[in-house]
Amino acid sequence: MSHQTLTIFKELVKKINEYNEALSILFWDLRTGAPKKGVEGRSEVIGMLSTEQFNLSTSQQMGDCLSQLSETSVFESLNQTEQRMVTEHKKDYDRNKKIPVNLYKENVILTSKSESVWEEAKDQSDFSIFQPYLEKVVELKKKFVEYWGVKGTPYDTLLDIYEPNITASQLDQVFGMLRERLVPLVTQIAESTNKPNTTFLHQSFSEEKQREFSLFVLKEIGYDFAAGRLDKAVHPFMINLNLKDVRITTNYYPDDITFSLFSSLHEGGHALYEQNISAELVGTGLCTGASMGIHESQSRFWENMIGRSLPFWKRYYKNLQEVFPNEFSSVSVEDFYRGTNEAKPSLIRIEADELTYNLHVMIRYELEKALFNEDLKVADLPQAWNEKYTEYLGVTPAHDGEGVLQDVHWSGGDFGYFPSYSLGNIYAAQFMNTIQKQLPEFDTYIENGELLPIKQWLSDQIYQYGKLLTPAEIIKQVTNEEINPEYLIAYLEKKFKDIYQI
Amino acid sequence: MSHQTLTIFKELVKKINEYNEALSILFWDLRTGAPKKGVEGRSEVIGMLSTEQFNLSTSQQMGDCLSQLSETSVFESLNQTEQRMVTEHKKDYDRNKKIPVNLYKENVILTSKSESVWEEAKDQSDFSIFQPYLEKVVELKKKFVEYWGVKGTPYDTLLDIYEPNITASQLDQVFGMLRERLVPLVTQIAESTNKPNTTFLHQSFSEEKQREFSLFVLKEIGYDFAAGRLDKAVHPFMINLNLKDVRITTNYYPDDITFSLFSSLHEGGHALYEQNISAELVGTGLCTGASMGIHESQSRFWENMIGRSLPFWKRYYKNLQEVFPNEFSSVSVEDFYRGTNEAKPSLIRIEADELTYNLHVMIRYELEKALFNEDLKVADLPQAWNEKYTEYLGVTPAHDGEGVLQDVHWSGGDFGYFPSYSLGNIYAAQFMNTIQKQLPEFDTYIENGELLPIKQWLSDQIYQYGKLLTPAEIIKQVTNEEINPEYLIAYLEKKFKDIYQI
Repeated sequence: MSHQTLTIFKELVKKINEYNEALSILFWDLRTGAPKKGVEGRSEVIGMLSTEQFNLSTSQQMGDCLSQLSETSVFESLNQTEQRMVTEHKKDYDRNKKIPVNLYKENVILTSKSESVWEEAKDQSDFSIFQPYLEKVVELKKKFVEYWGVKGTPYDTLLDIYEPNITASQLDQVFGMLRERLVPLVTQIAESTNKPNTTFLHQSFSEEKQREFSLFVLKEIGYDFAAGRLDKAVHPFMINLNLKDVRITTNYYPDDITFSLFSSLHEGGHALYEQNISAELVGTGLCTGASMGIHESQSRFWENMIGRSLPFWKRYYKNLQEVFPNEFSSVSVEDFYRGTNEAKPSLIRIEADELTYNLHVMIRYELEKALFNEDLKVADLPQAWNEKYTEYLGVTPAHDGEGVLQDVHWSGGDFGYFPSYSLGNIYAAQFMNTIQKQLPEFDTYIENGELLPIKQWLSDQIYQYGKLLTPAEIIKQVTNEEINPEYLIAYLEKKFKDIYQI
Repeated sequence: MSHQTLTIFKELVKKINEYNEALSILFWDLRTGAPKKGVEGRSEVIGMLSTEQFNLSTSQQMGDCLSQLSETSVFESLNQTEQRMVTEHKKDYDRNKKIPVNLYKENVILTSKSESVWEEAKDQSDFSIFQPYLEKVVELKKKFVEYWGVKGTPYDTLLDIYEPNITASQLDQVFGMLRERLVPLVTQIAESTNKPNTTFLHQSFSEEKQREFSLFVLKEIGYDFAAGRLDKAVHPFMINLNLKDVRITTNYYPDDITFSLFSSLHEGGHALYEQNISAELVGTGLCTGASMGIHESQSRFWENMIGRSLPFWKRYYKNLQEVFPNEFSSVSVEDFYRGTNEAKPSLIRIEADELTYNLHVMIRYELEKALFNEDLKVADLPQAWNEKYTEYLGVTPAHDGEGVLQDVHWSGGDFGYFPSYSLGNIYAAQFMNTIQKQLPEFDTYIENGELLPIKQWLSDQIYQYGKLLTPAEIIKQVTNEEINPEYLIAYLEKKFKDIYQI
C-alpha cells in the first residue's frame, strides 16, 4: 500500500462527515421550526446531499482504498484509530454494495409509502390498511438479509446493524431473565395498596419556567451550552452536528412537569456523551457513540439513575420549588420522588415508566424474532401482540391504534432497533454498579450537587472513546464483565419495592 | 445542439441551487445562534460545500453546455427563461474562469486576513494598521478587473457585478443631481429651528413587546409566516433558502423602539420580493432579486416610503400604543411621525436617516471611483474622506474609526457595492411615482391598512419576474423611463421641507 491510499481514504471519510453535518443541520432545522411551506423544496436538497454522500461511501475509490487497507500486512501497520476506521467503513461499504441498486430504490419508495400508510392506519386504528405494506416491508427486508448474509440467524443480521455483534441467543437469555423477575414485580406493584400520589405533577406549568428549569439542570449535569443549545421540538432528540455543536430539544406540556424535565435529562445524557468524545476522533467517522445501546445507556443513566433518584431530588427539589413556589410548596421531596417514579402497567411504550418499559421492549423483540427467525405471519401480529400484553403486563389493547400500530419503526423497516432501548437500561445499571464501587461517595456527590466528577468518570471510561471501541469492548473494559442484566433487575427490584413498600 | 445539453445544463443549475440552499442554512444558523465553539468545525463544512458548488459552476461540463447553448441558432431556439439562464450562468462562468486559480486563492487568503486586520484597525481607530492590507486588496482587485476585461472604465467592471450594466458615467449624473439638490436641503434642515422631538423613541422597551409589534406589522404588509420566520441577529438580514422559505432577522435595542421596527420592515421588504417570485423560476438560478439595487428598492420602499409615512402611522399608531400604552399614550401621531423622520448630518452611514443616507453613499462612490479610475492613493483615503464629509454633510470625523474605517466592505474587496444602496432609493421613488398614478387611492389604502393591494401591484410589476428581467428592463417596463433621480429628490424635498417647515 502506498502512503497515499491512507491519505485519500481519510479525505474521503472527512468529506462524508462534512456531508453528514450539512444533512444534520437541515434535519435539525426541519424539526425545530422550518416554515412548513418550504419543506418540499428542502426535501430536494436533502435528497441531493444524501445522494452525494452515498455515492462517496460506495465509490470505486472508497472500495479500492478499503480493499488495499484491509490486506493483513497493511492493516496491521495501521494505528488503532485507523484500523477501526477501516473496519467500520468496510462494514458500511459491504452492507451498501451487497444490495442491488434496484432493490435499494424499491426499498426507499416502499418505506416512504409505508410510513404514510402506517400513519393513516394508526389514525383509524385499522391494521388491515397497513398489513399489505408491512408484509412487503418484511419480505424485502428478508431479501436484504440474504444479500447481507445470515449471521447465525436472520434476525442476528438485523440486530448487528444497531448493536454490533449482539445475537438473538444472547437476547433470549437477557430478556428471559427480565421476564422471569420483572413480570412478577409488575404484578406485585399493581396489587400494592401503597401507591404514590401524582396529582401535583399535573398542574399548570408555564413553558417559560419549564424551560428555565431544564436549562438549570442541564447546566448542573455539565452540558456545555457554548457547544450546544436547547430548542423545542414535538419529539425530543439530540443531534451531533460536530464535536463542539451538540444540540438537544425538548417539549413542554402545560399540564405535566415531568415531560420536559426528564426528556431534557434524557437528551442531555446523549449530549454529554457526544460532547466529551476525544477531539482526536473528529473527522474519522468514529466521533460518535459506540452503538445505539451504549448511547441509550447514557440517556437512561442521566434520566433515570440520576434524575429519578432520591439523592438528586434531595439536592435539587428546592430549586424546582423556587421556580414553582405555588405548585410545590406543600409537597414533600419524598412524595415528589415517589410521584415521579410511579410504575404502572400500560399500553403505550413511550409513556411507560422506568420499570415496565423493559416489558414493552421485550414484547417487540419477541415478535420481531418470530417474524424473521420463526414462522410468524404479519397477518397474525395484532393477535400475538395483544396476547403478550395481556400475559406480561396484564393489560389488553382495545384497538390496534394503542396496540400493534403504535410505533413508527416497522413501517420504515427498522427491525432490530427496539432491543437497544433495554440494552441501554442494562448497560446503564452495569456502569452504575461499577461507578458505585470506584466512587464510593456516589450518592453523596449527587446529594451535594457535585455531578461533574460523575460526568468526568463517564468521560474517562466511556465517552472519550466514541466509536473507537465496540460495545462489547466498552462493557468489558469498564465493568470487567460481559453484558449482564442482573444489575438492572437488582436495581429495579430495590428501587420499586422500596417505593411501593412491597 | 442535442436536447440532452439543455437537460444536463438545467440539472447542473438545479444542483448548484441546492448547494446554495444548504450553504444558506449554514449561514443563517451561524448568525442566529449556532454555539460558538462549533464554528470552527462548521467552517470546514462550508468550505467543502462551497468548493463543490464552485467546481460545478466552473466545470468542463458547464463550459461545454454554455458554449453550445450560446451559439446563435441554438440560443434563439430557447425560451425566455432558458435564454436568461444561459446568459446569467455564462457571465458567472466567464467571470470565474478568467481569473487564474492562484490569484483566486491569493484573494481568499488576503481578504480573510484583511477583514480581521480591519476589525483591529477600527477598534484602535488607526488607519495605518489597515493601510498596507487595503493597498494589496485594491491592487489585486485591479488585476482582477484586467482579467475580467475593462468595460468602459475599470470601475464600471466592478459596478456591473452588483448592478448589471450601470456605469460610472450614469452614476456621475445621478449622484451629481443628488449632490446639487440634497446638500443644500441638508444645510437648511441643520439650520431649521423647527426640529422634531425624539425623546419618546428612547424609553425602555421590552424585547418581547418589540417582537410582538414586529410580527404584527410583518403580517400586515403580507409577509407569509408559513413560508418564513423572524429571528434575532446582531446585524439584521433576509435570506432566501427557497421560494417558500424566506427568513428575516432583526435586533432589539432596549432603549430604541425604531431599530427593530424599521429593520423588520426593511428586511420584510426584501422578503416580500423573494416570497413572490414566480414558482416557474424555482431551480433556474433566476429565482431571486434582479440586482442589489432593485432588491434595495423594495426594502427601502417598505421601510421608508410606507413605514415612515404619515398615512401608515395614522392607521397603525393605535396598535403601537396598545402594545406600549405607558410609553406613547401622551405622544401624538404627528409627533411620532416627525420623530421617526429626524434628519441630521452624522458620521456613521448605518445610523443615518432616509435623507442624509444618500450623501454617505455618494462619498463612498466618489472615493471608489477615484481609486480605480483616477489616481487616488489608498494612503490618501482618510484625508479625502474627511474633506468630503465636511463639504457635503458639514461634519468631520474626529478619528478614522468614525471615518474611513467604519464599513467592512472594502476589507473584503467589495468595491462597487455601495452605489446599490442609493440606487435602491432612486428606484423606489420611481416605482412609487408610478404606483401613485396607477393606484390613485395609494395613500387611502395605507391609511385604511389595506396594504395587500400594494403588495399585489409590486408582485405583478416586479416581484414575479425575479431575475428574468435585468434591472434596466424592469425600470423601463414599470415606469416607462430610464433611471431618474428626480423622483427621489422631489419626494425627499417635499417630505423633509414639510417636516422641518422650511
